[in-house]
Amino acid sequence: MSSFDYTIAIDAMGGDNSPKKVIDGIGLFLKEDKSIFFNIYGDEALIQNHINQNKSIQQFQYKIFHCSTKIENENSVRNAIKVGKDSSMWRSIDSVNKKDSDLVISSGNTGALLVISKLLIKMINGIDKPAIAGLWPNFKNASIVMDLGANIDFNEKNYLDFSKIGAELYRVIFDKQEPVVALLNVGSEEVKGHEELKNSFAKLANQKNNFIFHGYMEGNQIKDGNVDVVITDGFSGNIALKTAEGTVNYITTEIKKIYSSSIFGKFCYLVSFFIFREIKKTLDPRKYNGGIFLGLNAPVIKSHGGADSLAFYYSLKLSAKILRGNLLKKIKLNFNNE
Amino acid sequence: MSSFDYTIAIDAMGGDNSPKKVIDGIGLFLKEDKSIFFNIYGDEALIQNHINQNKSIQQFQYKIFHCSTKIENENSVRNAIKVGKDSSMWRSIDSVNKKDSDLVISSGNTGALLVISKLLIKMINGIDKPAIAGLWPNFKNASIVMDLGANIDFNEKNYLDFSKIGAELYRVIFDKQEPVVALLNVGSEEVKGHEELKNSFAKLANQKNNFIFHGYMEGNQIKDGNVDVVITDGFSGNIALKTAEGTVNYITTEIKKIYSSSIFGKFCYLVSFFIFREIKKTLDPRKYNGGIFLGLNAPVIKSHGGADSLAFYYSLKLSAKILRGNLLKKIKLNFNNE
Repeated sequence: MSSFDYTIAIDAMGGDNSPKKVIDGIGLFLKEDKSIFFNIYGDEALIQNHINQNKSIQQFQYKIFHCSTKIENENSVRNAIKVGKDSSMWRSIDSVNKKDSDLVISSGNTGALLVISKLLIKMINGIDKPAIAGLWPNFKNASIVMDLGANIDFNEKNYLDFSKIGAELYRVIFDKQEPVVALLNVGSEEVKGHEELKNSFAKLANQKNNFIFHGYMEGNQIKDGNVDVVITDGFSGNIALKTAEGTVNYITTEIKKIYSSSIFGKFCYLVSFFIFREIKKTLDPRKYNGGIFLGLNAPVIKSHGGADSLAFYYSLKLSAKILRGNLLKKIKLNFNNE
Repeated sequence: MSSFDYTIAIDAMGGDNSPKKVIDGIGLFLKEDKSIFFNIYGDEALIQNHINQNKSIQQFQYKIFHCSTKIENENSVRNAIKVGKDSSMWRSIDSVNKKDSDLVISSGNTGALLVISKLLIKMINGIDKPAIAGLWPNFKNASIVMDLGANIDFNEKNYLDFSKIGAELYRVIFDKQEPVVALLNVGSEEVKGHEELKNSFAKLANQKNNFIFHGYMEGNQIKDGNVDVVITDGFSGNIALKTAEGTVNYITTEIKKIYSSSIFGKFCYLVSFFIFREIKKTLDPRKYNGGIFLGLNAPVIKSHGGADSLAFYYSLKLSAKILRGNLLKKIKLNFNNE
């Protein structure tokens, strides 16, 4: 395996249409990048069957680890931990724990992935809880928003830690030396918000940071792209993310309804076909696929359960960037340990 | 004034393009509904000047109360209270306090409007804090979402009170006897969320309500319209609202960019002109203009500061509905006082 830069552990069984979409996603990735080795966990016969249908994987090296079970989305986290030790998710996470892989990626149950990762990979010394970071498209490119739902109760230390971690992540993904970090709030004045937020604001404003502290920002400013890293508690962050997803779905569905409700509408759709293709490409959420669990001793990537092979490919690209950028080491340096 | 059903106090000076948009909005309203009397507060000369240019108002009765100052959006709330006693906002709120008007509407500074309303009109016995409710479009019609930002710290009693109040508001606006009420959370399982939310869930699930309690819901489900009243704390609610606004702006801007970036795009736009007009009409946010402050001894309506005359007209229609539906009496009955 020495000819490979990094090894990624793949939970091939999570999410819709797995393992097919996972295998096809790896196939897309390997067409571009041949220096990552894949440890693939799941039902060996099924995986092998899909690999046999995918030429771009067949040419390369990989290893399949047969797992007799998988953790279902309906499994409660408690249940998943109890019965999941032979599952593809557990064993792919454990391969990172055992240093057989450098990063693990799964499309499965988010709660189980978070808890098993914390159990096996453990937190970085000095960080209390993991956070989920995600890419959020904006007019300029994309921001990082975190936490997207791992931490319902949030304290001052979380805001401060996640500001540092988010800045490191942005630096690695977008190669910008001084990212702009802001705290998501209900107004931009200093007096707004709850106590934890105000205390965090005061600390960040008065200490030396390795990023530019922008202060507070509001939800409608994420789109502008003037802030690179948006820090919020997991409760508001999750609600903001899902509300935004729902809003996109609402608008696109209403627009589609109007085009399809008349012959003239259908005609306009046909005429504008290439424009629609361009719009779909621009607004394609698959480009931003991949929730990044941060604060653990290795990167854990959650691909969207409903994502297809192209979306899975994007989360693999993100994973490779995180590994090549040496994110873990950079985060650890912020907490004085390596 | 006895020939009128109700009297609305108008702060004519708040928001962009006031008092013109306010006067024109009243003009649009009076074309349809002639049984509301308006007490108009603000700069008399300016107001009279705009009325002179608006035929539909001239035919009707109204009263202008000259106010020498106005509260600016930049005013801090503390400052607004100190210097604002002669302002159009203060005096229009006070006219409700003095029973000269039944409801007050303003496009001005939200914080000042909230605090001065609480100061003058006071809370209904048994309700701790006011909440801001708003209409949120969905596939079926519209939901009510509250609180949209008045209460940053939220306790169990707030969730329970606002569920009742929100249900009364929905009944009055949409004439549905048993509205469906849900608590906004980060998942739909009972174990999710923070303590206040879980306790509120348990109470609402086990007590008799005058609405259907749906349980928890997530941000991406608001659009579906299966829930009529979405209850959330003011922090998450405000972030959800503004993030949704930002998302709408992001998508529509990106689509416009694509249409205008090529000759072919511009051609498609021209061909599809009527389709675009229909889309704009369907997605027009002006139809949902009007934040409703609830829990006070009279309804207070906040029109969006950037709203135009048509949006102001919609908030007047909403105001008339609230008055005709006798919302205040219905809310008070829930708290055993009249």
